[in-house]
Amino acid sequence: MMSPIDPRKLRNAFGKFATGVTIITTVESNGTPRGFTANSFTSVSLDPPLLLVCIDKSAASLPVFQEGKGFAVNILVEAQKNAAGLFASHRADKFNSVPWHSGRLGMPLIDDVLAWFECVSENHVDAGDHVILIGRITDFDYRNAQPLGYAGGGYFNLGLEQSLVDVASKGTGIIIGAVLEQDGALLLKEDDKTSKVSVPAIGRDGTQPSLPRLVKELSSGDLSVSIDFLFAVYEDLKTGVHVVYYRGMASGPALAGTRFFSFDEIPWDRLIDDPTHSMLERYVREFKYGNFAIYMGDDIEGKVHALDTKTAGSDT
Amino acid sequence: MMSPIDPRKLRNAFGKFATGVTIITTVESNGTPRGFTANSFTSVSLDPPLLLVCIDKSAASLPVFQEGKGFAVNILVEAQKNAAGLFASHRADKFNSVPWHSGRLGMPLIDDVLAWFECVSENHVDAGDHVILIGRITDFDYRNAQPLGYAGGGYFNLGLEQSLVDVASKGTGIIIGAVLEQDGALLLKEDDKTSKVSVPAIGRDGTQPSLPRLVKELSSGDLSVSIDFLFAVYEDLKTGVHVVYYRGMASGPALAGTRFFSFDEIPWDRLIDDPTHSMLERYVREFKYGNFAIYMGDDIEGKVHALDTKTAGSDT
Repeated sequence: MMSPIDPRKLRNAFGKFATGVTIITTVESNGTPRGFTANSFTSVSLDPPLLLVCIDKSAASLPVFQEGKGFAVNILVEAQKNAAGLFASHRADKFNSVPWHSGRLGMPLIDDVLAWFECVSENHVDAGDHVILIGRITDFDYRNAQPLGYAGGGYFNLGLEQSLVDVASKGTGIIIGAVLEQDGALLLKEDDKTSKVSVPAIGRDGTQPSLPRLVKELSSGDLSVSIDFLFAVYEDLKTGVHVVYYRGMASGPALAGTRFFSFDEIPWDRLIDDPTHSMLERYVREFKYGNFAIYMGDDIEGKVHALDTKTAGSDT
Repeated sequence: MMSPIDPRKLRNAFGKFATGVTIITTVESNGTPRGFTANSFTSVSLDPPLLLVCIDKSAASLPVFQEGKGFAVNILVEAQKNAAGLFASHRADKFNSVPWHSGRLGMPLIDDVLAWFECVSENHVDAGDHVILIGRITDFDYRNAQPLGYAGGGYFNLGLEQSLVDVASKGTGIIIGAVLEQDGALLLKEDDKTSKVSVPAIGRDGTQPSLPRLVKELSSGDLSVSIDFLFAVYEDLKTGVHVVYYRGMASGPALAGTRFFSFDEIPWDRLIDDPTHSMLERYVREFKYGNFAIYMGDDIEGKVHALDTKTAGSDT
């Protein structure tokens, strides 16, 4: 049905597989550390200890990884989401902004990761537009913490559960909303009188909110809605109400009173409140670094630039 | 510090990486379907479309995968946790218990998965105790749903969030508990008078429960506790109270009033109530199929048997 293979659809299908997030590092012969964000890590063998990562042939650092004596895999915890974004970017000062140290083999190890593996290069396998790097583990360690997760084109955060338990144990009012994206545009609600812009939500009027009801309300026209993951849980300090936002995808024309805003059209000065402002900023930032940059396990250098152009001005 | 490499510790470190869960399938030359549960799927290349999976050299079905013309990768949704357990087991009737159909290439495709990929074999790479199978995708499809996740030695369930939102929106009382494991034994609480056994929890006495308080209470002796994931959220229909259970690891001697029960010593007839009984049954079952069986991406055939022996009688 879907042959011949459409690369854009294939990327979406690949992205359905949930993964952790890693930073893969190595050093140039002059000692300069290099690294990129990837989710293509796979454990391969216990005896001998082997792992693999995939690297894009267009990556600027490919020769360093191919010719160096080894590399390290750093598995990130939830609190390292910013490091994931940084190492998925084109910035030159990556290693100045994140604490790290050198392992025994000389590979850069990011501090406070969930697990790390230092490897000597064992084998390179040519595989289409990527190279599979197989490493033999010489040293490793791990600790107990929540992993940073990635699936369906965005990070997921198992720790948000804890915020929800806090909300539940307090028993105060909650509002449930959804940040819905269609082709790089967000579905937002515009108030006719005040011209204030908000994220579609249920529960503001005192009715008991539920996600199925919200989805049903939003889907009542020709718009179809699917919810992917929990995105934010917080207490609105002005009102004392707890707010739970999911993120998901919309498909079809916007309902009356709502409108799709492309990322560079979002009316930041008309947003209903500060928490909504912060949350949408984070959404746009993560969409930019996450959605395209990570799930193929690519070295992003050389790719994010095009993305910058596409979403210019959206990451205020 | 950790050289030489300890395989058991390495397996724990590998397991820290969060992944989705797949069933990898193929057919024997006589048409018999074969399949196993794995989390070693990695997307490799968009052009040409390539993916890889790792298969244990000790797997009974290895020759079928190596010599067959292709294979399929089925990415599971949350609702397919039972299929994951089934295909991680040694049972002969796997394909009788799960709805499936043949793809164009003749590979078994599990119904209602999150995504599937049908592939012709492109390359096999020898890698220690595993073989890396590289497949060229000939056909695929996907849909929007929540993936089944695996990390830190157990499934995680992003959909539990939704149950928590329901709890929060109802504003009724909640109890927070923790299923804590140490070396294949569970920490349970024994009531001196009634001799009833329960899972350590906070909130039964009407105090406002919180996970940090529960962890603090349990950690007050020489026992140290780490929480991994949310495990269960349900309403106790007899009391109307909502119950939230996490799972995690304990290390050290049990506190007074509590005791570690190995899986085959759990006093099923003294458990405090039916929901606790069901939940612990599920824990034991998933620990058995999940903890050892899945995270290396192995074909489990030939391995689960040893596990059966170890935890005999625990999966009532």
